[in-house]
Amino acid sequence: MADLFWPGDERAGQAFDPGSFLGVMVDVESAWLHALQRAGLAPAGAYDLQALLGGGDLARIATSAEASGNPVVALVSLLRERLRARDEEAARWLHRGLTSQDVLDTALVLSARATARLVLLELDRQVESLTDLAERHRADLMAGRTLTQHAVPITFGLKAAQWLQGVLDARDDLRALRFPIQAGGAAGTLAALTELGGDVEAALSVAAAAAEELQLEDATPWHTNRAVVTRYADALVRANDAWGHVANDVLLLARPEIAELAEPAVEGRGGSSTMPQKANPVLSVLIRRAALTAPMQAAQLHLAAAANVDERPDGGWHTEWSALASLSRHTLTAASQTSELLTGLHVDTGRMAAVVKQQASALLAEHRSLASLSRDLSRDLPHDGGDADFDPGHYLGATASLIDRILARARSQEKP
Amino acid sequence: MADLFWPGDERAGQAFDPGSFLGVMVDVESAWLHALQRAGLAPAGAYDLQALLGGGDLARIATSAEASGNPVVALVSLLRERLRARDEEAARWLHRGLTSQDVLDTALVLSARATARLVLLELDRQVESLTDLAERHRADLMAGRTLTQHAVPITFGLKAAQWLQGVLDARDDLRALRFPIQAGGAAGTLAALTELGGDVEAALSVAAAAAEELQLEDATPWHTNRAVVTRYADALVRANDAWGHVANDVLLLARPEIAELAEPAVEGRGGSSTMPQKANPVLSVLIRRAALTAPMQAAQLHLAAAANVDERPDGGWHTEWSALASLSRHTLTAASQTSELLTGLHVDTGRMAAVVKQQASALLAEHRSLASLSRDLSRDLPHDGGDADFDPGHYLGATASLIDRILARARSQEKP
Amino acid sequence: MADLFWPGDERAGQAFDPGSFLGVMVDVESAWLHALQRAGLAPAGAYDLQALLGGGDLARIATSAEASGNPVVALVSLLRERLRARDEEAARWLHRGLTSQDVLDTALVLSARATARLVLLELDRQVESLTDLAERHRADLMAGRTLTQHAVPITFGLKAAQWLQGVLDARDDLRALRFPIQAGGAAGTLAALTELGGDVEAALSVAAAAAEELQLEDATPWHTNRAVVTRYADALVRANDAWGHVANDVLLLARPEIAELAEPAVEGRGGSSTMPQKANPVLSVLIRRAALTAPMQAAQLHLAAAANVDERPDGGWHTEWSALASLSRHTLTAASQTSELLTGLHVDTGRMAAVVKQQASALLAEHRSLASLSRDLSRDLPHDGGDADFDPGHYLGATASLIDRILARARSQEKP
Amino acid sequence: MADLFWPGDERAGQAFDPGSFLGVMVDVESAWLHALQRAGLAPAGAYDLQALLGGGDLARIATSAEASGNPVVALVSLLRERLRARDEEAARWLHRGLTSQDVLDTALVLSARATARLVLLELDRQVESLTDLAERHRADLMAGRTLTQHAVPITFGLKAAQWLQGVLDARDDLRALRFPIQAGGAAGTLAALTELGGDVEAALSVAAAAAEELQLEDATPWHTNRAVVTRYADALVRANDAWGHVANDVLLLARPEIAELAEPAVEGRGGSSTMPQKANPVLSVLIRRAALTAPMQAAQLHLAAAANVDERPDGGWHTEWSALASLSRHTLTAASQTSELLTGLHVDTGRMAAVVKQQASALLAEHRSLASLSRDLSRDLPHDGGDADFDPGHYLGATASLIDRILARARSQEKP
Repeated sequence: MADLFWPGDERAGQAFDPGSFLGVMVDVESAWLHALQRAGLAPAGAYDLQALLGGGDLARIATSAEASGNPVVALVSLLRERLRARDEEAARWLHRGLTSQDVLDTALVLSARATARLVLLELDRQVESLTDLAERHRADLMAGRTLTQHAVPITFGLKAAQWLQGVLDARDDLRALRFPIQAGGAAGTLAALTELGGDVEAALSVAAAAAEELQLEDATPWHTNRAVVTRYADALVRANDAWGHVANDVLLLARPEIAELAEPAVEGRGGSSTMPQKANPVLSVLIRRAALTAPMQAAQLHLAAAANVDERPDGGWHTEWSALASLSRHTLTAASQTSELLTGLHVDTGRMAAVVKQQASALLAEHRSLASLSRDLSRDLPHDGGDADFDPGHYLGATASLIDRILARARSQEKP
Repeated sequence: MADLFWPGDERAGQAFDPGSFLGVMVDVESAWLHALQRAGLAPAGAYDLQALLGGGDLARIATSAEASGNPVVALVSLLRERLRARDEEAARWLHRGLTSQDVLDTALVLSARATARLVLLELDRQVESLTDLAERHRADLMAGRTLTQHAVPITFGLKAAQWLQGVLDARDDLRALRFPIQAGGAAGTLAALTELGGDVEAALSVAAAAAEELQLEDATPWHTNRAVVTRYADALVRANDAWGHVANDVLLLARPEIAELAEPAVEGRGGSSTMPQKANPVLSVLIRRAALTAPMQAAQLHLAAAANVDERPDGGWHTEWSALASLSRHTLTAASQTSELLTGLHVDTGRMAAVVKQQASALLAEHRSLASLSRDLSRDLPHDGGDADFDPGHYLGATASLIDRILARARSQEKP
Repeated sequence: MADLFWPGDERAGQAFDPGSFLGVMVDVESAWLHALQRAGLAPAGAYDLQALLGGGDLARIATSAEASGNPVVALVSLLRERLRARDEEAARWLHRGLTSQDVLDTALVLSARATARLVLLELDRQVESLTDLAERHRADLMAGRTLTQHAVPITFGLKAAQWLQGVLDARDDLRALRFPIQAGGAAGTLAALTELGGDVEAALSVAAAAAEELQLEDATPWHTNRAVVTRYADALVRANDAWGHVANDVLLLARPEIAELAEPAVEGRGGSSTMPQKANPVLSVLIRRAALTAPMQAAQLHLAAAANVDERPDGGWHTEWSALASLSRHTLTAASQTSELLTGLHVDTGRMAAVVKQQASALLAEHRSLASLSRDLSRDLPHDGGDADFDPGHYLGATASLIDRILARARSQEKP
Repeated sequence: MADLFWPGDERAGQAFDPGSFLGVMVDVESAWLHALQRAGLAPAGAYDLQALLGGGDLARIATSAEASGNPVVALVSLLRERLRARDEEAARWLHRGLTSQDVLDTALVLSARATARLVLLELDRQVESLTDLAERHRADLMAGRTLTQHAVPITFGLKAAQWLQGVLDARDDLRALRFPIQAGGAAGTLAALTELGGDVEAALSVAAAAAEELQLEDATPWHTNRAVVTRYADALVRANDAWGHVANDVLLLARPEIAELAEPAVEGRGGSSTMPQKANPVLSVLIRRAALTAPMQAAQLHLAAAANVDERPDGGWHTEWSALASLSRHTLTAASQTSELLTGLHVDTGRMAAVVKQQASALLAEHRSLASLSRDLSRDLPHDGGDADFDPGHYLGATASLIDRILARARSQEKP
């Protein structure tokens, strides 16, 4: 079960937490029992399955998970045993028609959706902060750097707009995700459910009803087709890519020798255990940590997808849990840390301007070479590169237009 | 340059191959020069830049690529030198306004698009073959296997339909890819181009004209936002995931002890250097090879994306080339191998039926347990599981409906 | 702290567990305080630092870990505060001379060593089981399979000996691991400790004394040189590679169509939530899970190593924790599962022999081709391949000698 | 064959290159034929197998490699056909007793050894350069940086010594590598060779003789135990980790705002296609590129190792080639680039000292806090932190001793 330690599960103390991953699995069994009831199969009656579980059950289920290879067998037998005390027939109907993977996959989808929604809220906050930064600093000059060296002038607004592009790309992918139920039974044929329901239509309608209660898409079984999982992972990685980009820039530009940016100062954060003066850029360090690990977690999930065989596979599926939980946990943390970083980012435009001034000669070398080209071509350029007093602020090219285009994209994608 | 060895480059013998990656970079310089001409900047005149290159140039450029960190500097200086002999002014205008990364990235996009188109053609062929297999074998019984053991009966049509699902998922993602030009100049501001063109509008229109000639999307610069690259990679991986699933099933079911499937027999393929009788399932082995390597290549590209810093980065970008080229090469090979595998797949329905017959007791264990449940519930099920002669073919649940749903999806996505 | 959830930490319930990772960090602080005392710096006196912590502290420290980027700052401030009540001067000396990374790295080394020792015990058990299997089945014929097809005969003893080779390779690497203390202070110069101790020799001797108490190697600081970590990870991966090989073979050979091997049967293991007859090969599935994930965890640690910069890095270090903890946890589980699998492995030699008999023609095709070669060469071979009654057991080549060589290697490496 | 494009193969132009990977495979067949001759099996006679191949053969073999899944089948049939013209009986004996994997694996080992030797030469050069840098700059003050911020003073000699540690760690692992022959025949039993040789001893002695000619270790077959491959890969990655560390530091410290280090200036290197003034740190960028990609290549090889099944596997093996070739190629390049970088590294000690002076207050914050501790403890420290004129050069702790320890390690490992 350590593999299925999902974001939020840290909160769980002694008592059973219905919001934990174990709780989400119970939600799935519950929705399924309701669907069997609505179809007139299981006996009517209201049971709060969540209430059947208590604090010590997580450990009990975790232990038997090792024996059956997944936690569902133990969960079902425990729920069934306790439900029996209330209603023997209902207990018999619990989980009927499902296989372990149906429950676990559907619970993963529900958890993934919850994570994706939280990440989307953070992305929306970030779009707002970045829009603001791009607008506010659209004309604030800074040195453009490429391959670590000074290149030509840019504005900090352009840098913020480029960060924004990455965030918008990630948001597009997260918004496009789809969250289907998994319900196929032993080998994806719904055979048991069909048998129990009397005919195929009844079986399909039970699955549809369970999907509806859980607000998931109804779908054909996808036990061995993991695009649902890998698209979610790819989208989270794309978000981490975008945040990693931001964090790298902040880590660099907040170095004392550059000092153009600084993380928001918060009492107690970034302290050192030995050096009282230090304010470590902890947000960026941890965001970068997530960005460095997310790609491998997604690769793990693709490997699991590619290892499929049979009607349900022998190990590929099991490798997903740890990667999914840890990718989700790191992403959620990085999402809120990036929001906080961007909201409170300290921008020292004076320092940026001073660097441009001091490095004007290097930053205008390209401009001078164009001037010399123009002389060769006997053709006038708008600015004379030979002029030692030429203002780097006049060599910004299409910066303003490019910022506008990106801001327009951000605006066009706002939700009403 | 070994890192930029792209699909098709093997064909290149002694002579310079305009279809090689080097040739594609020349196409980019060429389209850019045309755009400068159309804008009235560079002098009119038709130059075939491809014709300026010869067989030995690849090696020459490769050598200097090590010095400048990329092959563009050497390519431009070589093209400029040779063009000078024909038209000195045109030679001066070559590449003006671009940075190396503009050329290399745009060439990567063009190569990626060419690869994606070829892969899509193969996916279309596969959809056709799989539709055919799913329809033809919709009722051909076989053992459903889960976690390596016999579970409940399925049909081979359902397995083919599940393979089809994976292929459709991959096709959706490949169809959704977008291919933009990269044109930003030194630090993504189009400063040099603006200077040369006289104003921002002129600069933006040169970039737009070049995009149009190359049939790429016009776009704001994305030097440090690599969703273009990672989405392409993720889509290729998704295709490899789907094919790996097929290959794993074929490798298993073509084992002599199972022998339900066989690869198409082709004279000379799968031979052993020592055992004359062997017919190794070479297509599946190589498809599986691609599926096992693709996830890591995509992870490499995400890592590159997450390592972005400055206006153009110091190593992240450079790690993309090898991963992109090798992922594209392996995917193209696997795409055509999967098409060939599916088109000629030998399905032994007799053998499948025999296994079901022989393993009927195991395959109907779930059914028997339902019958016992129904007795407990004093409720009749359509079939009496206690019957020793019960036909596994009656325990297929919603198999036919599920196949129909997947086939309907395939049909709804056909291009007119 | 979820990233630092180490093997065994699951056991921790409500109360503080001195064996948890948090407890190991306290051991480090404790050994350091003792060393300061022995050097005459900190005041003499016995304090049980472990006793200062209670059940709720883990959560408290975990929360502030997010603020400072690591859990040490919070741990030290909590310990110092509580120690102050007993001995104000001792409290002031706690942690003096160390940086957070010193404590965390040393705790990781201690946890890694504990894990490595447990894994080595399991490897020793496996060497014993495999030696026994190789000896017992040295002459038990089975089909050799290559690229999924029947090749030539082998014995099961040879297969067991090959498994043994992999386990011996892994054991060599685990035995060679070295476990040094990390003690360098803020930037690896031991400046604070030197200042406090009065001279360099005193400082070095404090570090040496702490290493001695913890039974670790004394070492120069390795904040930015992570061979200690990556060698540990590589060795664990090598063990997982060996076990994955075993698990793949068992998963295949335990398929009902082959049925030459079976996992040890244990009441309640491998049950299905819906199919009563099934005995899923759960041990092998979970071993394979670990083998599929370990390589990526090690890659993560190498990436962290390669991302080093400055005297202590900005994110690389932080990516290690989750990968190390999860790799260690999975490896420990897989280690004991493999031992259990091998100890109780059911080998059906009758079934193996039957397959060889039935497939004799295919398994002797190479032999026949040699016979035909010998006729071409007019040279007698010991066996006449044309003989239809030729016994596959006579075509085993050097099988017995090869088994002996591997067994001899196993014996030569036994600890006295 | 693009997957088997090995370092040095770029050199191959039109003519067949005996040093190419194809040439190495021919060496293996040649050594084997000699061993068969020495055993009195194949007829005596000297044949230069390399001379049988010409320029077009690489392409021919590459094409058929796709059909048989590896290039050996085609190579052997081509060699046999051409040898037949000279000596029909020798042609029949060619490759007898080997399987394709024997040839390919042994050729990989030979190529790996050649690569490892070249890398070791570079590591030796680096040890020399770093020893020199550590000694020369042992007392040259610079700012110690942790988590991007200024921490306490160090010397550049200490930084160089830390780089040296990483290089020494890598060298240890590379020196410990072992390079065995692969010779097992179809399923690792040496059955064909035993049959041809008349008895087991003869067979084993042929394998031993071939190993001797190739100067490889004699070994039991390791078709499914890939520690040979993964240890080589892990060692290369460890070297890249060490170099990546160096490159990251150089990339940072060569930034114009810091400018404490600079890459050796070489005419034509690091030029920009548009900015004449720029000197991009191309060596470090490309070294970093290798360090960012090596971990994933090694993970690929471990995955291949973990995917073993049967006596020779169905895809795992095939995934090795591309990863091994590309890892070797990148590592060789990075090795020589790092040597060049270290040999010519420009160290600006004046600039380092100036930063220390300017940032003295921050760099001595820890020192001041110790002084305040000492006042609390009523205990004298050697230096009074309250002194505003305190020299950061007096707060170096054990720096000199630590440098000496590392230098001593380097010296103790010198080859005589």
